[in-house]
Amino acid sequence: MNRPLLGTSASEIGIDRADREPIQQQIARQIRALVLSGRLKPQAKLPSTRALSEELDVARATVVEAYEQLLSEGYIETRTGSGTRVAPVLPEALLTAPVKAAPFKAHRADQRRQPAKPFRSGLVDWENFPHDEWGRLVGRVWRNPSIALLEHNDAFGWLPLREAIARHLFEWRGISCDAADVIVTAGAMDAFDLISRAVLSPGDRVWMEEPGYPTARRVFSLGGVATIPVPVDGDGLSVAKGRDKAPDARAAFVTPARQYPTGVTMPLARRLELLDWAAEADAIVIEDDYDSEYRYVGRPLPALMSLGGTARVIYSGTFSKVFSPLLRLGFLVVPHGLTSRFREERLSHGSPPSLMAQPALAEFIASGAFAIHIRRMRRIYANRRAALLNALKPGDGTLYTLDASPAGLTLLLRLPASADDVALTHTLAEAGVEVHPLSADYAGRRKEQGLVLSFAGFAEKDLEASARNLMGVLSR
Amino acid sequence: MNRPLLGTSASEIGIDRADREPIQQQIARQIRALVLSGRLKPQAKLPSTRALSEELDVARATVVEAYEQLLSEGYIETRTGSGTRVAPVLPEALLTAPVKAAPFKAHRADQRRQPAKPFRSGLVDWENFPHDEWGRLVGRVWRNPSIALLEHNDAFGWLPLREAIARHLFEWRGISCDAADVIVTAGAMDAFDLISRAVLSPGDRVWMEEPGYPTARRVFSLGGVATIPVPVDGDGLSVAKGRDKAPDARAAFVTPARQYPTGVTMPLARRLELLDWAAEADAIVIEDDYDSEYRYVGRPLPALMSLGGTARVIYSGTFSKVFSPLLRLGFLVVPHGLTSRFREERLSHGSPPSLMAQPALAEFIASGAFAIHIRRMRRIYANRRAALLNALKPGDGTLYTLDASPAGLTLLLRLPASADDVALTHTLAEAGVEVHPLSADYAGRRKEQGLVLSFAGFAEKDLEASARNLMGVLSR
Repeated sequence: MNRPLLGTSASEIGIDRADREPIQQQIARQIRALVLSGRLKPQAKLPSTRALSEELDVARATVVEAYEQLLSEGYIETRTGSGTRVAPVLPEALLTAPVKAAPFKAHRADQRRQPAKPFRSGLVDWENFPHDEWGRLVGRVWRNPSIALLEHNDAFGWLPLREAIARHLFEWRGISCDAADVIVTAGAMDAFDLISRAVLSPGDRVWMEEPGYPTARRVFSLGGVATIPVPVDGDGLSVAKGRDKAPDARAAFVTPARQYPTGVTMPLARRLELLDWAAEADAIVIEDDYDSEYRYVGRPLPALMSLGGTARVIYSGTFSKVFSPLLRLGFLVVPHGLTSRFREERLSHGSPPSLMAQPALAEFIASGAFAIHIRRMRRIYANRRAALLNALKPGDGTLYTLDASPAGLTLLLRLPASADDVALTHTLAEAGVEVHPLSADYAGRRKEQGLVLSFAGFAEKDLEASARNLMGVLSR
Repeated sequence: MNRPLLGTSASEIGIDRADREPIQQQIARQIRALVLSGRLKPQAKLPSTRALSEELDVARATVVEAYEQLLSEGYIETRTGSGTRVAPVLPEALLTAPVKAAPFKAHRADQRRQPAKPFRSGLVDWENFPHDEWGRLVGRVWRNPSIALLEHNDAFGWLPLREAIARHLFEWRGISCDAADVIVTAGAMDAFDLISRAVLSPGDRVWMEEPGYPTARRVFSLGGVATIPVPVDGDGLSVAKGRDKAPDARAAFVTPARQYPTGVTMPLARRLELLDWAAEADAIVIEDDYDSEYRYVGRPLPALMSLGGTARVIYSGTFSKVFSPLLRLGFLVVPHGLTSRFREERLSHGSPPSLMAQPALAEFIASGAFAIHIRRMRRIYANRRAALLNALKPGDGTLYTLDASPAGLTLLLRLPASADDVALTHTLAEAGVEVHPLSADYAGRRKEQGLVLSFAGFAEKDLEASARNLMGVLSR
């Protein structure tokens, strides 16, 4: 290793010809370090490229390249007549910013695994998920990807997936739609945000179910829309009450297949009443259909959109409950006349969802594996629900009642008006039971009391143990 | 197959015991069809469950289940004393909505593959992409996924990926940051949108490079921010001009490593001048570092954020250029004091990016495969750039000049002020050459003329052929 003097400074540059770092980079790096450490002062003269190349015994072009690098970084400058000098502006801010030795602390503690406990929401069963099939499919797609994927630029998503979704919706939800009207989204929040921007304007009024899905209410509110809480009765959102409160609303957001959080199914008569109002008011009905494939008695109900209402119904679906929340994929079916507005919004704002899962998911649905998965999980979830219902069976002294709609991935345990479901949620959390308070799903002041229990992600014995735990706390 | 009479109607219900469709569903489906076809009229009386079960020779419970299904769908109703009847409200809308036989047209024509031609932007090389390694990695992650992935709920992204990004930034960009301050985003638009919501308010003024990246300008404008075009000179954004136009701006958006679209690198003196202004004005500097790993002479320049400016610099990076645009993944490094505001925004709005690619990408970076990929692609892209530069070498008669910054994935071909680069873009498109007009990257009226050529996705011979084609059009 040579250690010649660098010009008039006492510093040294070492060249290691065995190192994988190219020589010009070794030179530039060491001069940079000399400048940053203050050993080469601002305006200090550097040796000419010829002189330094001779000193270091390297090609002159190598030194030229190193100098060019430092020049472009602003560490040195060249003036005609005065040669190469260290740049004059090297303020303290730069000189005192030491490079830390260990700049990245692993914050594993933040994410240390806390095993999920019943009845945490947002989980699906992981033991029975077809990991092998899914992993093989994803791997196969990306080991030998179509160049069409690279050149893909349809803001509505990967066409084969949109076709597979259209076919699934026809078979499972009675919806007759065209792949051209299907938009792949990055999940429900992305979908609501897109709807908000494409068809709602700030100041518009939107009927929201009371109680209802708080995320939907928040996303629409953030878009500047006035959300109008409309009470839910035994048939779902009360159209009569909606007409009283805001007859001229621009849209109604409903979960007709299984109202969140009450579990109520909107019967045909109410659906038609809602569509009648929408036609009169020239309003849009947003149908959020988040887990309707999981119906344990009878067939899944046809979607509201299937009632000939494709001109003013926007249908929102998600793969988070029926398949896996990890994909963060959902979809919208929009009236054909609105697709261009949705496309404009998609292009101008936000990011279309990742393509990573889309081709594999398209194949998974088209091959029939998706339908098999749903049927299989339906049996498993039906058993879990039955086990939980059985474990929670109200006795003579119990104060709660259980919603018994034979569908979905949650149960609603209703409490008397005197209960405080938020305080109870905290008490239960201390006892190791995670629940969601019903009152949190109300926008207005009049709130009913209850606990929403998500059972999808847990084995029967865990559900039973947590149910006993829950009943123990409730009996106190 | 039995074909008994259904009550008083002449219609028939057929039961096929060999069918995979459960019998109660066969019954419900056929009654539904009779209602929808009008053969069972509104208010028509249905047989009792006992009578129908005897007629069909099935268990009474089976008929009860079928009726319950139809009841919950609203097709029929039960009144004490009058038995089960078809629901009275079955308006025309429903009765005339025929189920289409072929509901999904394949819109393949829309997406029929048009092979990309030089110099389309947004592509990376696909031939040399490590498909095998990447596909195997992705497949392995998902065949045997950690349950931590299912239970993952950090809005900032998968921690191992954030750690890998922090390490990469330290090694390649001189940035010393903590994984806790890294936010995985769904690409640049998502990142700019998040910045806009977390640290800018409607009415805030933001310096934007002129010419500059139109997408960034658009996303900030949509957030209600006033974007102030600040001219770019040979050292990048002119801080002096910015001070003239909007000294009290809240933020400056810059691409210091390689200004888009001019290719200019911001030297150290200008960087420090910018940071000085930001400190005085209490402003934020948004450093968009989109392809700085691809520098063909010397090492990549350290990032602006590395200049001790972590308290007021937000760094934005993306995997779209340096790896693959299909992931739609990028990242932000934000000042530690701002992380809680970013977290709030992430939780309240939009969707965090998909987890599908994150675990595999974390492993790909941590294993060193990512650095190998970048070095390999750097050689390939350097050759492509050299071939294109050579093919376009201006002769005595040519009117254009070539930006020669030895970095990035685009070349800027500057045209005289008398040219019309938009018209030229159309003419070239007809000749099969895709370019981007420089004038489109200006917000103000004073626009320079030029063509932005993206060379990353094309083989040398294709670049040379398109360059000849381009020169042929220019010489006319």
